[in-house]
Amino acid sequence: MSPSSRPRRSLWIFGFESEEPTYEQRVERAASVSQRLGVTLTAPRIPTADDLELRAPRIKPPDSLAAFCFQDNWERAYHSYGADRSSHAIYGEYPNPPDIVAHPRDEAELEAILSWCSDNSYCAIPYGGGSTVVEGVTPPGDRGPIVTIDMDRFDRVLEIDPISRAARIQAGIYGPDLEDQLRPHGFTLRHFPQSFAHSTLGGWIATRSGGHYATNQTHIDDFVESTRMLTPRGWWESRRLPGSGAGPSPDRMVIGSEGILGIITEAWMRIQARPTFRATAGVSFPSWEAGYEATRRIAQAKLWPANLRLLDPQLAAGSAGMDGTRALLIIAFESAEMSQRWAIGQAVELARAAGGLIADDEIVVDDGTGAPTGRAGAVGAWRDAFIPRGGGIAAGLGMVGGTFETSITWDRWPAFDAYVREQTMKALNEIFGGGTLNCRFTHVYTDGPAPYYTYSGAYRAGDWREQDRQLKKAASDAIMKMGGTITHHHAVGRQHRPWYDQQRPDLFAEALRAAKRTLDPASILNPGVLIDP
Amino acid sequence: MSPSSRPRRSLWIFGFESEEPTYEQRVERAASVSQRLGVTLTAPRIPTADDLELRAPRIKPPDSLAAFCFQDNWERAYHSYGADRSSHAIYGEYPNPPDIVAHPRDEAELEAILSWCSDNSYCAIPYGGGSTVVEGVTPPGDRGPIVTIDMDRFDRVLEIDPISRAARIQAGIYGPDLEDQLRPHGFTLRHFPQSFAHSTLGGWIATRSGGHYATNQTHIDDFVESTRMLTPRGWWESRRLPGSGAGPSPDRMVIGSEGILGIITEAWMRIQARPTFRATAGVSFPSWEAGYEATRRIAQAKLWPANLRLLDPQLAAGSAGMDGTRALLIIAFESAEMSQRWAIGQAVELARAAGGLIADDEIVVDDGTGAPTGRAGAVGAWRDAFIPRGGGIAAGLGMVGGTFETSITWDRWPAFDAYVREQTMKALNEIFGGGTLNCRFTHVYTDGPAPYYTYSGAYRAGDWREQDRQLKKAASDAIMKMGGTITHHHAVGRQHRPWYDQQRPDLFAEALRAAKRTLDPASILNPGVLIDP
Repeated sequence: MSPSSRPRRSLWIFGFESEEPTYEQRVERAASVSQRLGVTLTAPRIPTADDLELRAPRIKPPDSLAAFCFQDNWERAYHSYGADRSSHAIYGEYPNPPDIVAHPRDEAELEAILSWCSDNSYCAIPYGGGSTVVEGVTPPGDRGPIVTIDMDRFDRVLEIDPISRAARIQAGIYGPDLEDQLRPHGFTLRHFPQSFAHSTLGGWIATRSGGHYATNQTHIDDFVESTRMLTPRGWWESRRLPGSGAGPSPDRMVIGSEGILGIITEAWMRIQARPTFRATAGVSFPSWEAGYEATRRIAQAKLWPANLRLLDPQLAAGSAGMDGTRALLIIAFESAEMSQRWAIGQAVELARAAGGLIADDEIVVDDGTGAPTGRAGAVGAWRDAFIPRGGGIAAGLGMVGGTFETSITWDRWPAFDAYVREQTMKALNEIFGGGTLNCRFTHVYTDGPAPYYTYSGAYRAGDWREQDRQLKKAASDAIMKMGGTITHHHAVGRQHRPWYDQQRPDLFAEALRAAKRTLDPASILNPGVLIDP
Repeated sequence: MSPSSRPRRSLWIFGFESEEPTYEQRVERAASVSQRLGVTLTAPRIPTADDLELRAPRIKPPDSLAAFCFQDNWERAYHSYGADRSSHAIYGEYPNPPDIVAHPRDEAELEAILSWCSDNSYCAIPYGGGSTVVEGVTPPGDRGPIVTIDMDRFDRVLEIDPISRAARIQAGIYGPDLEDQLRPHGFTLRHFPQSFAHSTLGGWIATRSGGHYATNQTHIDDFVESTRMLTPRGWWESRRLPGSGAGPSPDRMVIGSEGILGIITEAWMRIQARPTFRATAGVSFPSWEAGYEATRRIAQAKLWPANLRLLDPQLAAGSAGMDGTRALLIIAFESAEMSQRWAIGQAVELARAAGGLIADDEIVVDDGTGAPTGRAGAVGAWRDAFIPRGGGIAAGLGMVGGTFETSITWDRWPAFDAYVREQTMKALNEIFGGGTLNCRFTHVYTDGPAPYYTYSGAYRAGDWREQDRQLKKAASDAIMKMGGTITHHHAVGRQHRPWYDQQRPDLFAEALRAAKRTLDPASILNPGVLIDP
């Protein structure tokens, strides 16, 4: 029994069931990969929900909650993981599924299920889009019965204030639905994390998601006008205010709280008129170093481009068709009000002064005439590579693929990058016998970049999960040692805890723990995420 | 015995002793005001520190702390108040002075004095520049011995990172000293609250000060890269990070904490190259309504002007020489890198489209040639009126002058403004038998303005403090009722508590209280500010 009539997401790809590759397609891919690597790989048969023998639920919902609580295999298997579901699904590994998956349809139902959890000390896990890559929604193994609360029925834009350009939006709405509901009014939130199609507003707020804008308004934080959150102790709601200096910001305690303090139900968000003026340029540089120097100068000139994404030579070659020696800087401006010709011109001038190459006719300015911008050439190739597709065709063939991301001040960046690459490559060699590593800047600040590293390789025989852990540890240790943050926008979850614990002030953790004890006295909300009880 | 060889600040004007008007000047002013109002006013003689008979100190510092602890009349009287000192000083009212004023010279001395307070449960009040207008540093009357900790010896820029454009700066440094120490390196913090000359970096951070920029980077919050704070439980220090998504921001719990969680000792701050390109325009509008509609459109176009300050017709008449019917919008852009001709042109175009008037030759663009910008005409007149002078010449003559400020979303703004004016004028009439009221926008957001109201009048016979309280209550009640914040950048202190308590989520206050109990178990730090223990 499905709780929703909408297309169902896949148990094993980052996408919908309808996008899953067929078994035949996967067999074909296994053959071609086998040929390329000179080994014999077999595409595993992936169990369906019906095939699974899950641990019997340890609790049953009372009749009063039964209408929105589910215990079928699909619901429990799906909610066992976040975006790492594939690696578990192909082996049918669901050792610790939630006992109940609730889909409350309104605040009264949410209050009822959370009270029930609170009264019985059942662990409650708030679930948005399940796009976490850091085990942010994985049930802990040692906490007894688990109730996962999926917010997907909170899926509406409730109110639009066109004068202030703000909207009251329910937290469980997925990215595309949110934009669909704003579009008829001429507005957009314009927050496009890579997970956009499969993540929700509440998830973005709870995890400090990084969005569309590469400069100035980088995190969802900047678009939050006020929040409404249910805690085990009751409701927490802030005033709609454009700005305030009244004490530490209540919203900033909600933003990034990763479900440990409460469940966000709605927020007033700053929205925008849909941009019609655009300007784009892809500027190449003779080296990675020349590229990031130029990027720094443009960021510090405070032109605030919407896009300022730098690709290292490896990535520029792989995803934007460049020659492997040159870095690519993608600069874009956008506006609902005015031509961006001047701004792109200034940015290109700074880029050229720092050694960048671009022909005048490659600077594309669209003054609302609908001329294609950024969809051709190197910029377009990159755009296509950036948008995640369903994937999964190589599932179970032993391909390693992962990412890690951080931020660091400019003064430390060159040594940071060198050390992180050295340590990560060393780990790739030791653990996988080799691999590839590349880097891009997803966001850029006046005082430093947010670099995003992508690696690949092939698992060796043995415990693949241990191999993943070792690689992740090597990269994370390097980031910590060199002064970065364990995450710029992937959140902490359970996976990043050891490094987060080194990074945050100890007394801040104590203060947060005290705050949690106040709001969640039974410590039922997402235990193990961010802090220990 | 003065703890410092620097010029001493005045006990009764907002400035230095050297700027105090003489008794003769004040007598002259009393005569001219008397003549104007048809009454007989006398300039009171203002007691000097030596004249005061303060309560004997209830405690003595131990020998180990004596070198930086002071108990003389001047120190104790001066640290009895913030920027409201004048109204008390003219009557020699110091019923509850601190018992000790400490000026620790380094972190070891700060640790020592805070430990001593902690061990003995003495109330400890962190003191920056003492520019608070909300009783943020006033000793509470019911807490026994008081130690005020003045951070003025923490007065250096410790380190400059020119690559990342950031600097490590001690918290007790005053605005002018901070800029003096950055200037030789070509940098500026460019945070200029109206209190700039008499406030400190630590005070700005603790109170979420509002600075130079009218849009985009409005509060000090945006310039904080990391913070270092001493709590009774020990040190709290965050990493230098351009951006992070790792849990709720630790810095955002420090920013706005108003001395109740710890004493900020230093911060890494984002600094900037000194601007050399400027552009300014003063655009007049046929009405207040036309002015704020234009301001909204410019803010929402995201040009991010450095200045976007709107003066209502009353204020434009009084301080910018206009005719009393037209509003004045001051727009300014600045940059260290490039001409701002295009930007000011776009802003003026939007302003004109919304009914604004400005001649082409009144748009002043300075492309680094040093041509005067914004120092002539209506804009220059406003600039001169904005910068606070020593004042005090009319002290004790019964003149009422005060301000209150807030922020509100655009959709509610017209009704908000009407109601706040109505209620405030009603109170001015009832309490003072009349008065004046005007408004300007100090900061502007895409979703709403930060209006700043200034009122004046004349005290009636009787308790002038009660008259102040009644006026403030009427204005604050109106702000609360209509959905604003009790403060956009003046902080909460002790004075704004009743309205702050209505505004913040109750559960946030509980969480903050729990955090404070963890960091300050004996509840010695600035009790009564923000929350009750």
